[in-house]
Amino acid sequence: MADMARWEPDARERLVLAAMDLFAEQGYDATTVVQIAERAGLTKSTFFRHFPDKRQLLVAGQDALSRLLAEGIREAPPDAAPLEAVAAGLRRAAGAMTPFNRQLAPRFKAAVAANAELQERDALKRVGMATAMTEALAGRGVPGPVARVAAELGVLAFKQGYATWSADGEPDELLTATLSALDELRDAAARMS
Amino acid sequence: MADMARWEPDARERLVLAAMDLFAEQGYDATTVVQIAERAGLTKSTFFRHFPDKRQLLVAGQDALSRLLAEGIREAPPDAAPLEAVAAGLRRAAGAMTPFNRQLAPRFKAAVAANAELQERDALKRVGMATAMTEALAGRGVPGPVARVAAELGVLAFKQGYATWSADGEPDELLTATLSALDELRDAAARMS
Repeated sequence: MADMARWEPDARERLVLAAMDLFAEQGYDATTVVQIAERAGLTKSTFFRHFPDKRQLLVAGQDALSRLLAEGIREAPPDAAPLEAVAAGLRRAAGAMTPFNRQLAPRFKAAVAANAELQERDALKRVGMATAMTEALAGRGVPGPVARVAAELGVLAFKQGYATWSADGEPDELLTATLSALDELRDAAARMS
Repeated sequence: MADMARWEPDARERLVLAAMDLFAEQGYDATTVVQIAERAGLTKSTFFRHFPDKRQLLVAGQDALSRLLAEGIREAPPDAAPLEAVAAGLRRAAGAMTPFNRQLAPRFKAAVAANAELQERDALKRVGMATAMTEALAGRGVPGPVARVAAELGVLAFKQGYATWSADGEPDELLTATLSALDELRDAAARMS
Protein backbone atom coordinates (compact mmCIF):
# COMPACT_ATOMS: atom_id res chain seq x y z
CA MET A 1 0.00 0.00 0.00
CA ALA A 2 1.30 3.48 -0.86
CA ASP A 3 2.25 5.68 2.04
CA MET A 4 -0.19 8.58 1.78
CA ALA A 5 1.67 10.81 4.25
CA ARG A 6 4.81 10.87 2.14
CA TRP A 7 3.18 11.20 -1.26
CA GLU A 8 3.73 14.49 -3.11
CA PRO A 9 2.06 15.18 -6.44
CA ASP A 10 4.35 15.85 -9.43
CA ALA A 11 3.83 18.84 -11.73
CA ARG A 12 1.33 17.11 -14.00
CA GLU A 13 -0.72 15.91 -11.05
CA ARG A 14 -0.64 19.33 -9.38
CA LEU A 15 -2.02 20.85 -12.59
CA VAL A 16 -4.92 18.38 -12.70
CA LEU A 17 -5.79 18.88 -9.01
CA ALA A 18 -5.60 22.69 -9.35
CA ALA A 19 -7.78 22.57 -12.48
CA MET A 20 -10.49 20.50 -10.74
CA ASP A 21 -10.60 22.90 -7.79
CA LEU A 22 -10.95 25.87 -10.15
CA PHE A 23 -13.62 24.11 -12.25
CA ALA A 24 -15.61 23.47 -9.07
CA GLU A 25 -15.16 27.02 -7.77
CA GLN A 26 -15.68 29.15 -10.86
CA GLY A 27 -16.73 26.86 -13.71
CA TYR A 28 -14.95 25.08 -16.54
CA ASP A 29 -15.50 27.77 -19.20
CA ALA A 30 -14.37 30.62 -16.95
CA THR A 31 -11.12 28.88 -15.96
CA THR A 32 -8.00 29.73 -17.98
CA VAL A 33 -4.76 27.82 -18.44
CA VAL A 34 -2.90 30.69 -16.73
CA GLN A 35 -5.14 30.41 -13.65
CA ILE A 36 -4.60 26.65 -13.48
CA ALA A 37 -0.83 27.05 -13.68
CA GLU A 38 -0.86 29.80 -11.02
CA ARG A 39 -2.99 27.76 -8.62
CA ALA A 40 -0.57 24.85 -9.04
CA GLY A 41 2.40 27.16 -8.39
CA LEU A 42 3.71 26.55 -11.91
CA THR A 43 4.11 28.52 -15.14
CA LYS A 44 1.94 28.52 -18.23
CA SER A 45 4.75 26.96 -20.24
CA THR A 46 4.93 24.07 -17.74
CA PHE A 47 1.20 23.54 -18.35
CA PHE A 48 1.80 23.31 -22.09
CA ARG A 49 4.65 20.83 -21.59
CA HIS A 50 2.07 18.46 -20.05
CA PHE A 51 -1.20 19.22 -21.89
CA PRO A 52 -1.98 20.79 -25.30
CA ASP A 53 -5.05 22.53 -23.82
CA LYS A 54 -7.54 22.63 -20.94
CA ARG A 55 -9.80 20.02 -22.52
CA GLN A 56 -7.00 17.46 -22.93
CA LEU A 57 -6.34 17.62 -19.20
CA LEU A 58 -9.71 15.89 -18.75
CA VAL A 59 -9.40 13.36 -21.55
CA ALA A 60 -5.99 11.89 -20.70
CA GLY A 61 -7.06 10.05 -17.53
CA GLN A 62 -10.28 8.81 -19.11
CA ASP A 63 -8.45 7.19 -22.02
CA ALA A 64 -6.04 5.52 -19.61
CA LEU A 65 -8.93 4.03 -17.63
CA SER A 66 -10.58 2.52 -20.73
CA ARG A 67 -7.23 1.08 -21.80
CA LEU A 68 -6.65 -0.59 -18.41
CA LEU A 69 -10.13 -2.13 -18.36
CA ALA A 70 -9.67 -3.54 -21.88
CA GLU A 71 -6.17 -4.89 -21.09
CA GLY A 72 -7.36 -6.68 -17.98
CA ILE A 73 -10.20 -8.30 -19.96
CA ARG A 74 -7.95 -9.36 -22.84
CA GLU A 75 -5.37 -10.91 -20.49
CA ALA A 76 -7.87 -12.83 -18.32
CA PRO A 77 -7.45 -16.65 -18.49
CA PRO A 78 -8.92 -18.05 -21.74
CA ASP A 79 -11.51 -20.09 -19.84
CA ALA A 80 -12.72 -17.15 -17.70
CA ALA A 81 -16.48 -16.50 -17.98
CA PRO A 82 -17.45 -13.07 -19.41
CA LEU A 83 -18.10 -11.53 -16.00
CA GLU A 84 -14.87 -13.00 -14.60
CA ALA A 85 -13.04 -11.27 -17.45
CA VAL A 86 -14.82 -8.01 -16.55
CA ALA A 87 -13.71 -8.51 -12.93
CA ALA A 88 -10.12 -8.91 -14.22
CA GLY A 89 -10.49 -5.60 -16.08
CA LEU A 90 -11.77 -3.89 -12.95
CA ARG A 91 -8.92 -5.40 -10.94
CA ARG A 92 -6.41 -4.03 -13.46
CA ALA A 93 -7.95 -0.55 -13.38
CA ALA A 94 -8.27 -0.44 -9.58
CA GLY A 95 -4.70 -1.74 -9.19
CA ALA A 96 -3.34 1.13 -11.30
CA MET A 97 -4.87 3.81 -9.07
CA THR A 98 -2.32 5.88 -7.17
CA PRO A 99 -2.57 8.29 -4.21
CA PHE A 100 -3.04 10.95 -6.89
CA ASN A 101 -6.24 9.28 -8.12
CA ARG A 102 -7.50 9.16 -4.58
CA GLN A 103 -6.82 12.87 -4.10
CA LEU A 104 -8.48 13.52 -7.42
CA ALA A 105 -11.71 11.54 -6.83
CA PRO A 106 -13.60 13.96 -4.50
CA ARG A 107 -12.31 17.00 -6.44
CA PHE A 108 -13.44 15.51 -9.74
CA LYS A 109 -16.84 14.79 -8.20
CA ALA A 110 -17.20 18.41 -7.04
CA ALA A 111 -16.09 19.73 -10.44
CA VAL A 112 -18.60 17.53 -12.30
CA ALA A 113 -21.41 18.51 -9.93
CA ALA A 114 -20.77 22.19 -10.71
CA ASN A 115 -20.38 22.01 -14.53
CA ALA A 116 -22.79 20.89 -17.27
CA GLU A 117 -19.82 20.57 -19.67
CA LEU A 118 -18.09 18.13 -17.34
CA GLN A 119 -21.29 16.15 -16.85
CA GLU A 120 -21.45 15.62 -20.61
CA ARG A 121 -17.80 14.63 -20.68
CA ASP A 122 -18.33 12.24 -17.77
CA ALA A 123 -21.27 10.67 -19.59
CA LEU A 124 -19.08 10.23 -22.65
CA LYS A 125 -16.41 8.58 -20.48
CA ARG A 126 -19.05 6.12 -19.30
CA VAL A 127 -19.89 5.27 -22.92
CA GLY A 128 -16.16 4.99 -23.72
CA MET A 129 -15.62 2.53 -20.84
CA ALA A 130 -18.59 0.42 -21.96
CA THR A 131 -17.37 0.38 -25.57
CA ALA A 132 -13.80 -0.56 -24.59
CA MET A 133 -15.03 -3.44 -22.40
CA THR A 134 -17.59 -4.65 -24.98
CA GLU A 135 -14.91 -4.75 -27.69
CA ALA A 136 -12.39 -6.51 -25.44
CA LEU A 137 -15.03 -9.15 -24.58
CA ALA A 138 -15.96 -9.56 -28.27
CA GLY A 139 -12.24 -10.14 -28.94
CA ARG A 140 -12.48 -13.14 -26.56
CA GLY A 141 -15.34 -14.55 -28.65
CA VAL A 142 -18.11 -13.48 -26.25
CA PRO A 143 -21.38 -13.08 -28.24
CA GLY A 144 -22.62 -9.49 -28.78
CA PRO A 145 -25.54 -9.29 -26.31
CA VAL A 146 -23.60 -11.07 -23.53
CA ALA A 147 -20.62 -8.76 -24.11
CA ARG A 148 -22.84 -5.66 -23.98
CA VAL A 149 -24.58 -6.71 -20.76
CA ALA A 150 -21.33 -7.80 -19.04
CA ALA A 151 -19.69 -4.47 -20.00
CA GLU A 152 -22.62 -2.45 -18.62
CA LEU A 153 -22.47 -4.38 -15.35
CA GLY A 154 -18.75 -3.57 -15.25
CA VAL A 155 -19.41 0.15 -15.77
CA LEU A 156 -22.11 0.20 -13.07
CA ALA A 157 -19.80 -1.66 -10.66
CA PHE A 158 -16.87 0.68 -11.29
CA LYS A 159 -19.06 3.74 -10.90
CA GLN A 160 -20.42 2.46 -7.60
CA GLY A 161 -17.02 1.38 -6.28
CA TYR A 162 -15.51 4.72 -7.27
CA ALA A 163 -18.29 6.64 -5.49
CA THR A 164 -17.71 4.66 -2.26
CA TRP A 165 -13.96 5.20 -2.55
CA SER A 166 -14.31 8.97 -3.21
CA ALA A 167 -16.47 9.34 -0.12
CA ASP A 168 -14.61 7.12 2.39
CA GLY A 169 -11.20 6.86 0.83
CA GLU A 170 -9.49 3.77 2.23
CA PRO A 171 -6.84 2.97 -0.40
CA ASP A 172 -7.81 -0.69 -0.83
CA GLU A 173 -11.49 0.04 -0.83
CA LEU A 174 -11.84 0.80 -4.56
CA LEU A 175 -11.24 -2.80 -5.58
CA THR A 176 -13.23 -4.28 -2.68
CA ALA A 177 -16.20 -1.97 -3.25
CA THR A 178 -16.11 -2.45 -7.04
CA LEU A 179 -16.00 -6.25 -6.91
CA SER A 180 -18.69 -6.38 -4.26
CA ALA A 181 -20.89 -4.13 -6.45
CA LEU A 182 -20.22 -6.45 -9.39
CA ASP A 183 -21.37 -9.47 -7.34
CA GLU A 184 -24.55 -7.66 -6.37
CA LEU A 185 -25.24 -6.67 -10.00
CA ARG A 186 -24.62 -10.24 -11.19
CA ASP A 187 -27.24 -11.47 -8.72
CA ALA A 188 -29.60 -8.74 -9.91
CA ALA A 189 -29.03 -9.77 -13.56
CA ALA A 190 -29.92 -13.34 -12.65
CA ARG A 191 -33.31 -12.08 -11.46
CA MET A 192 -34.21 -10.53 -14.84
CA SER A 193 -35.86 -13.64 -16.25
CA MET B 1 -50.40 3.55 -38.93
CA ALA B 2 -49.56 7.12 -40.05
CA ASP B 3 -49.68 7.73 -43.77
CA MET B 4 -46.13 8.78 -44.59
CA ALA B 5 -46.95 10.14 -48.04
CA ARG B 6 -49.37 12.72 -46.64
CA TRP B 7 -47.33 13.75 -43.63
CA GLU B 8 -45.94 17.30 -43.71
CA PRO B 9 -43.69 18.59 -40.92
CA ASP B 10 -44.89 21.63 -38.99
CA ALA B 11 -42.66 24.66 -38.39
CA ARG B 12 -41.05 23.28 -35.22
CA GLU B 13 -40.31 19.96 -36.92
CA ARG B 14 -38.92 21.69 -40.03
CA LEU B 15 -36.53 23.65 -37.81
CA VAL B 16 -35.24 20.48 -36.12
CA LEU B 17 -34.77 18.63 -39.43
CA ALA B 18 -33.00 21.63 -41.01
CA ALA B 19 -30.74 21.97 -37.96
CA MET B 20 -29.70 18.31 -38.08
CA ASP B 21 -28.83 18.57 -41.78
CA LEU B 22 -26.73 21.67 -41.14
CA PHE B 23 -25.00 20.13 -38.10
CA ALA B 24 -24.05 17.12 -40.26
CA GLU B 25 -22.88 19.29 -43.18
CA GLN B 26 -20.94 22.06 -41.47
CA GLY B 27 -20.77 21.24 -37.76
CA TYR B 28 -22.78 22.22 -34.68
CA ASP B 29 -20.60 25.17 -33.63
CA ALA B 30 -20.49 26.71 -37.13
CA THR B 31 -24.28 26.57 -37.56
CA THR B 32 -26.26 29.71 -36.65
CA VAL B 33 -29.92 30.15 -35.77
CA VAL B 34 -30.33 32.31 -38.90
CA GLN B 35 -28.99 29.52 -41.12
CA ILE B 36 -31.33 26.98 -39.50
CA ALA B 37 -34.35 29.25 -40.05
CA GLU B 38 -33.35 29.92 -43.69
CA ARG B 39 -32.85 26.22 -44.47
CA ALA B 40 -36.31 25.53 -43.02
CA GLY B 41 -37.81 28.34 -45.12
CA LEU B 42 -38.73 30.28 -41.96
CA THR B 43 -37.65 33.45 -40.19
CA LYS B 44 -35.33 33.87 -37.21
CA SER B 45 -38.24 35.12 -35.10
CA THR B 46 -40.17 31.92 -35.89
CA PHE B 47 -37.14 29.97 -34.60
CA PHE B 48 -37.24 31.89 -31.34
CA ARG B 49 -40.99 31.29 -30.94
CA HIS B 50 -40.15 27.57 -30.77
CA PHE B 51 -36.72 27.37 -29.11
CA PRO B 52 -34.80 29.76 -26.82
CA ASP B 53 -31.51 28.78 -28.51
CA LYS B 54 -29.72 26.24 -30.71
CA ARG B 55 -28.86 24.00 -27.77
CA GLN B 56 -32.45 23.75 -26.55
CA LEU B 57 -33.47 22.38 -29.95
CA LEU B 58 -31.50 19.25 -29.05
CA VAL B 59 -32.60 18.93 -25.43
CA ALA B 60 -36.39 19.12 -25.94
CA GLY B 61 -36.81 15.73 -27.63
CA GLN B 62 -34.44 14.03 -25.22
CA ASP B 63 -36.41 15.16 -22.18
CA ALA B 64 -39.64 13.97 -23.79
CA LEU B 65 -38.16 10.51 -24.37
CA SER B 66 -37.05 10.09 -20.75
CA ARG B 67 -40.48 11.25 -19.57
CA LEU B 68 -42.28 8.68 -21.76
CA LEU B 69 -40.06 5.84 -20.58
CA ALA B 70 -40.65 6.74 -16.92
CA GLU B 71 -44.44 7.11 -17.44
CA GLY B 72 -44.73 3.71 -19.08
CA ILE B 73 -42.82 2.11 -16.21
CA ARG B 74 -44.88 3.85 -13.51
CA GLU B 75 -48.17 2.86 -15.14
CA ALA B 76 -47.28 -0.81 -15.74
CA PRO B 77 -49.50 -3.28 -13.81
CA PRO B 78 -48.50 -3.45 -10.12
CA ASP B 79 -47.54 -7.12 -10.42
CA ALA B 80 -45.34 -6.63 -13.51
CA ALA B 81 -41.76 -7.87 -13.08
CA PRO B 82 -39.02 -5.18 -13.37
CA LEU B 83 -38.17 -6.04 -16.97
CA GLU B 84 -41.88 -6.17 -17.90
CA ALA B 85 -42.20 -2.65 -16.54
CA VAL B 86 -39.19 -1.62 -18.64
CA ALA B 87 -40.90 -3.17 -21.68
CA ALA B 88 -43.99 -1.08 -20.87
CA GLY B 89 -41.79 2.03 -20.82
CA LEU B 90 -40.28 1.13 -24.18
CA ARG B 91 -43.77 0.47 -25.57
CA ARG B 92 -44.90 3.91 -24.40
CA ALA B 93 -41.86 5.63 -25.95
CA ALA B 94 -42.06 3.70 -29.23
CA GLY B 95 -45.80 4.34 -29.46
CA ALA B 96 -45.28 8.09 -29.19
CA MET B 97 -42.96 8.21 -32.21
CA THR B 98 -44.40 10.06 -35.19
CA PRO B 99 -43.43 10.24 -38.89
CA PHE B 100 -41.33 13.23 -37.80
CA ASN B 101 -39.24 11.05 -35.48
CA ARG B 102 -38.70 8.63 -38.31
CA GLN B 103 -37.52 11.41 -40.63
CA LEU B 104 -35.31 12.66 -37.84
CA ALA B 105 -33.61 9.36 -36.95
CA PRO B 106 -31.12 9.05 -39.88
CA ARG B 107 -30.45 12.81 -39.84
CA PHE B 108 -29.75 12.76 -36.12
CA LYS B 109 -27.39 9.83 -36.62
CA ALA B 110 -25.47 11.71 -39.33
CA ALA B 111 -25.30 14.86 -37.19
CA VAL B 112 -23.96 12.93 -34.18
CA ALA B 113 -21.39 11.10 -36.33
CA ALA B 114 -20.02 14.47 -37.52
CA ASN B 115 -19.89 16.36 -34.18
CA ALA B 116 -18.01 15.66 -30.96
CA GLU B 117 -20.36 18.06 -29.12
CA LEU B 118 -23.39 16.04 -30.19
CA GLN B 119 -21.69 12.78 -29.21
CA GLU B 120 -21.29 14.14 -25.69
CA ARG B 121 -24.90 15.27 -25.65
CA ASP B 122 -26.03 11.87 -26.94
CA ALA B 123 -24.02 10.16 -24.20
CA LEU B 124 -25.69 12.41 -21.65
CA LYS B 125 -29.10 11.50 -23.09
CA ARG B 126 -28.22 7.85 -22.54
CA VAL B 127 -27.40 8.55 -18.89
CA GLY B 128 -30.64 10.57 -18.58
CA MET B 129 -32.71 7.67 -19.95
CA ALA B 130 -31.04 5.22 -17.55
CA THR B 131 -31.59 7.55 -14.58
CA ALA B 132 -35.26 8.16 -15.47
CA MET B 133 -35.93 4.41 -15.78
CA THR B 134 -33.97 3.53 -12.61
CA GLU B 135 -35.94 6.09 -10.59
CA ALA B 136 -39.28 4.97 -12.03
CA LEU B 137 -38.43 1.35 -11.14
CA ALA B 138 -37.31 2.38 -7.63
CA GLY B 139 -40.72 4.11 -7.28
CA ARG B 140 -42.32 0.68 -7.84
CA GLY B 141 -40.28 -0.73 -4.95
CA VAL B 142 -37.71 -2.50 -7.16
CA PRO B 143 -34.42 -2.86 -5.19
CA GLY B 144 -31.52 -0.61 -6.32
CA PRO B 145 -29.26 -3.10 -8.12
CA VAL B 146 -32.19 -4.78 -9.93
CA ALA B 147 -33.53 -1.37 -10.97
CA ARG B 148 -30.11 -0.29 -12.27
CA VAL B 149 -29.58 -3.46 -14.30
CA ALA B 150 -33.14 -3.47 -15.71
CA ALA B 151 -32.78 0.19 -16.71
CA GLU B 152 -29.46 -0.46 -18.48
CA LEU B 153 -31.00 -3.37 -20.38
CA GLY B 154 -33.81 -0.98 -21.39
CA VAL B 155 -31.33 1.62 -22.65
CA LEU B 156 -29.36 -0.98 -24.63
CA ALA B 157 -32.61 -2.35 -26.13
CA PHE B 158 -33.88 1.10 -27.11
CA LYS B 159 -30.53 2.03 -28.63
CA GLN B 160 -30.46 -1.16 -30.68
CA GLY B 161 -34.10 -0.89 -31.75
CA TYR B 162 -33.62 2.75 -32.72
CA ALA B 163 -30.54 1.90 -34.82
CA THR B 164 -32.45 -0.80 -36.72
CA TRP B 165 -35.37 1.57 -37.26
CA SER B 166 -33.13 4.45 -38.45
CA ALA B 167 -31.53 2.15 -41.00
CA ASP B 168 -34.59 0.27 -42.35
CA GLY B 169 -37.42 2.49 -41.32
CA GLU B 170 -40.62 0.43 -41.29
CA PRO B 171 -42.92 2.44 -38.99
CA ASP B 172 -43.82 -0.51 -36.72
CA GLU B 173 -40.28 -1.76 -36.57
CA LEU B 174 -39.08 0.41 -33.68
CA LEU B 175 -41.24 -1.41 -31.13
CA THR B 176 -40.65 -4.85 -32.64
CA ALA B 177 -36.88 -4.37 -32.86
CA THR B 178 -36.67 -2.84 -29.37
CA LEU B 179 -38.65 -5.59 -27.66
CA SER B 180 -36.77 -8.30 -29.51
CA ALA B 181 -33.48 -6.70 -28.41
CA LEU B 182 -34.79 -6.63 -24.83
CA ASP B 183 -35.57 -10.36 -24.99
CA GLU B 184 -32.09 -11.09 -26.25
CA LEU B 185 -30.51 -8.96 -23.52
CA ARG B 186 -32.62 -10.65 -20.83
CA ASP B 187 -31.33 -14.04 -22.02
CA ALA B 188 -27.78 -12.65 -21.99
CA ALA B 189 -28.28 -11.33 -18.42
CA ALA B 190 -29.39 -14.81 -17.34
CA ARG B 191 -26.01 -16.14 -18.51
CA MET B 192 -24.04 -13.82 -16.22
CA SER B 193 -23.93 -16.22 -13.28
